[in-house]
Formats: sequence, structure tokens, C-alpha cells
Amino acid sequence: LNDLILIKLGGSVITDKSKEFVAREENIKRLAREIKEGQKAFSGEIIIGHGAGSFAHTPAAKYRTKRGLLNSSSLMGASIVEDAARQLNSIVIKNFLAENLPVFPFSPASFLINDAKGNSMSYIDPIKQALLTEFLPVIYGDVVIDKSQGFTIFSTEKVLSIIAKELKNSYLTRIILVTDVDGVLDKEGKTISRISKENFDQLKEGIIGAKNVDVTGGMLNKVEESLTLANDAGIETLIINGLKEGNLEKAIKGEEVLGTKIQNPN
Amino acid sequence: LNDLILIKLGGSVITDKSKEFVAREENIKRLAREIKEGQKAFSGEIIIGHGAGSFAHTPAAKYRTKRGLLNSSSLMGASIVEDAARQLNSIVIKNFLAENLPVFPFSPASFLINDAKGNSMSYIDPIKQALLTEFLPVIYGDVVIDKSQGFTIFSTEKVLSIIAKELKNSYLTRIILVTDVDGVLDKEGKTISRISKENFDQLKEGIIGAKNVDVTGGMLNKVEESLTLANDAGIETLIINGLKEGNLEKAIKGEEVLGTKIQNPN
Repeated sequence: LNDLILIKLGGSVITDKSKEFVAREENIKRLAREIKEGQKAFSGEIIIGHGAGSFAHTPAAKYRTKRGLLNSSSLMGASIVEDAARQLNSIVIKNFLAENLPVFPFSPASFLINDAKGNSMSYIDPIKQALLTEFLPVIYGDVVIDKSQGFTIFSTEKVLSIIAKELKNSYLTRIILVTDVDGVLDKEGKTISRISKENFDQLKEGIIGAKNVDVTGGMLNKVEESLTLANDAGIETLIINGLKEGNLEKAIKGEEVLGTKIQNPN
Repeated sequence: LNDLILIKLGGSVITDKSKEFVAREENIKRLAREIKEGQKAFSGEIIIGHGAGSFAHTPAAKYRTKRGLLNSSSLMGASIVEDAARQLNSIVIKNFLAENLPVFPFSPASFLINDAKGNSMSYIDPIKQALLTEFLPVIYGDVVIDKSQGFTIFSTEKVLSIIAKELKNSYLTRIILVTDVDGVLDKEGKTISRISKENFDQLKEGIIGAKNVDVTGGMLNKVEESLTLANDAGIETLIINGLKEGNLEKAIKGEEVLGTKIQNPN
């Protein structure tokens, strides 16, 4: 089994969450360089996902896009949200290209669908083959077509977890979530180094959500999705602070970084 | 069977083919309005495809992207070409949104793959469902992952024809190719009103190709692809001049327009 790392660049790191449609390009560039450096000491494959930050979250909240066709403005709203997600994606791609990374964006709305029972179906052959071709695939949180309510929203984590599950027989996968905090913090603001099914219930109350608008749910939601991935597919998640230079590079290389590991017990 | 029109907005209409990365936004806006007007007198569905024009054709020619992995610059080249195609797509989407059309872009690279034998496989459930949801799906010519040579290029016409074939049991489909000329011209520069298998061989020599760089082939190629579609799936193609105001609107409504129809004999 080949190693695969799924890296999620959080919206709070790559955009200014307090200002609509403002990207933090200096952070995107630096993270691109860290990925490039990290790759030199990592022989496996990498897939990048990035959040929507101040681009898609605001219209998504305004039009309640996650809930689908609700009223006469929902359809145009969904078009606007999907465009906002792509606008940020194109800024990420531009900056990664400038660092000479062979990025290849895959649009979740184009390869995923949600059925009437809430189960997603996906077509990831192009992504699999892109990895073999040595592209660096890039996905993002997106509006996704839904057979019962017209459309909904899939978070970046959800798309990455679908890909992780599809690939679990071909790759030994781990996930790095790049956020603006030092991992999951407890009530005292201290990093919790390890979360598993065993200690989650006792920690749950103290986990603080994201401060700004985030239609896909904050930190607690990330932890819950990660626990599900650990449980269903044995995939380990590491949550780190991407505002601190070098953290992502170290995490790719497998070196020690301040952050939270979410994994199966023992 | 519901009616479906696949409209291809040619690169020569929506970009300035003599200047790299220059879109003709006034044309894009006008065509968006014509589609909107045309829809009022057309009860079926519409899918839009657009060419790459002066955005993707130049890097595609430079890196010979259609031929796949040839040398050490091919991989980055493919990333650059795919990004160029998306840049134009985002300009098209922006202008269509401004005219209040509920557009939804689908990225061919994300739902198509070419296998080692040159056969494409596709996943178009999201596009089918988007039509039912009453989105206006938008596709474009794109870099497509290829299992033998890493990647290749699919023209907008090729992507549209794949979609047309996939949908042929659900929809009665016709195609409108929006170009910068009055259809297919003969040696004297006069519009050929009808082309079928029966008269193609005698007309072939006189058909003139596109003047500028076009890695996916000029007018002759379009006619040949259209004849194949007519033959394989009974789909009729109409080639019109999109620089002349009102032509696209009339064509959608099924009114008489100067242009060339490519169809099965009788």
C-alpha cells in the first residue's frame, strides 16, 4: 500500500473570514511551498482540499443552500454559491501554479451526487488516475446536486472523507487539517494531543466551535467526522495550526508538531 | 421525450482569438440574454458548452497537451492548460450570472476519463439531475485524464457529443454551434445550407478551417464530428453566426436562421 495524505487547507487560513471574498494569498503561497518541501521527504501521494472561507460561506448562509430548493431565490443562490467556491479555488490554483506544483482541480459537483436517501455516489476514477500521473489533485467544499432537494452542500472534509473511503484499499491514508488554531483546545485553551472514541464523550463539552460564519459546522463537527473516519476506515486525522510556518511541512514529513491526533483507541 | 438543445459558444465568439487571455464579454453577455429570451419560447432543456479560444489553445499548443506526457514540462503544462480553460469558464459564468441565468459549471476533467484504448468513460448523473433541478449546466473543452498517456484534450464538441449520446434515450437532442461565420462556407464563400453523409464527400475539399490556433481542429473537424453524431445518434447540428445579434435566440426558438444544418439524409 502506498501512502496518501489528504490535506485540508482551512478557510480561516486561506481567506480573511471577517471580509467577504478576500483571500490570504501570502498564506496560500507559503503553504504551497511547505507542501513542495514536504514532498521531498515523503514518497507517497498527496490530495489537497481547501475550505470556502469568506467566499462561499456567506452566500451559502444567505440562501440556505445546504437545505436545497426552498424558495424562488434558491436556484440562483446555488449558482452563486458554487461560483464563489470556484473563485477561491482559482486563487488557490493560481498560487500553487506559481510555486510550480502540478495542481489539477476536481470539482466535487461534477463527480458527486447525493441521492434521495442522503447517500452520496461518486466517480473518482479520474482522481485515482491523476494521482498515478503525478498530478496534485485539488478539491474543495462545494454545492452538490441532490436527488431529493435539488442540491445541498458538502464540506471539504466530507468530500475528502468520501475520497478516503474510496481509496482505502489502494492507499494507507492519513488526513491533515490545517486550521488557525493549535489543534483541538480544551476549556483552558490547551491543545488536546489525542482524541479517540474512548475519551471523546468526556472532552466533547469543552470543544469550542469556529467563531465566524461556517455553514458546514465548526471544530466539533470536524472532530466527529474524523472519529467516524477513524472508526469506519482506520484513517488518522491530525489537526494543526497552519498560521505557524513550518507546521504543515513537518506534518507531511511525519515529524512532531503541536496539534491533535484523532485516531482509533491504541 | 423532452427536447434538449446543446449550445456550443465558439472560442472565436467569446474571446479575441488574436490576443491571449482576452474575453469578449459584451458578446458573452449578449448571448446570455439571447439564451434567456430563447428559453421563453422553448419548453425543453438547454446545456451550454463553450470553447477555449485565446485562453487554453495557446498553452495547449505550446505544451502539446493533447499528446499527453511527452517531456519534463508536460505535466506542469497540463496544469496550466486546465487552469486557462477554467479562467475563461469563470468569465462566462460571471456574465451569465449577471443576466440571472442559474448556470452550473461541470468540469469535464472531473467526470470524464479516456482509457488506454481511446474510449471515454463518463459519469453524467449530476448533469442529468441538474437539468431536472432546472439549472443551466455549462461545460467546456478541457484537459482530460488519459489512462495511457496521462492526459489529453477533449474539445467542447467532443464533450457535448458524449453527453448527447448518454442522454439520447431521455431527450430529443439537437446541437447549435455558435461560430463567427455564417455556417459552413463553400469555395465561393456562400453558406452551405445542408450537409449529410450523401453530399459531404463532394463538399469536403471546399470547407475552410479556422484561421487561428485551434488545437482541437477547425470547421472541417466540426462537420465530421457532427456527421458522426447524426449517424450514431440521429442528432442534428446547426452551425450559425453568433456575432450577428438575434441568431442564437431564433435558433433556440426553432425559427429560420442563416446557417448550415448537418443531419442524416432525408
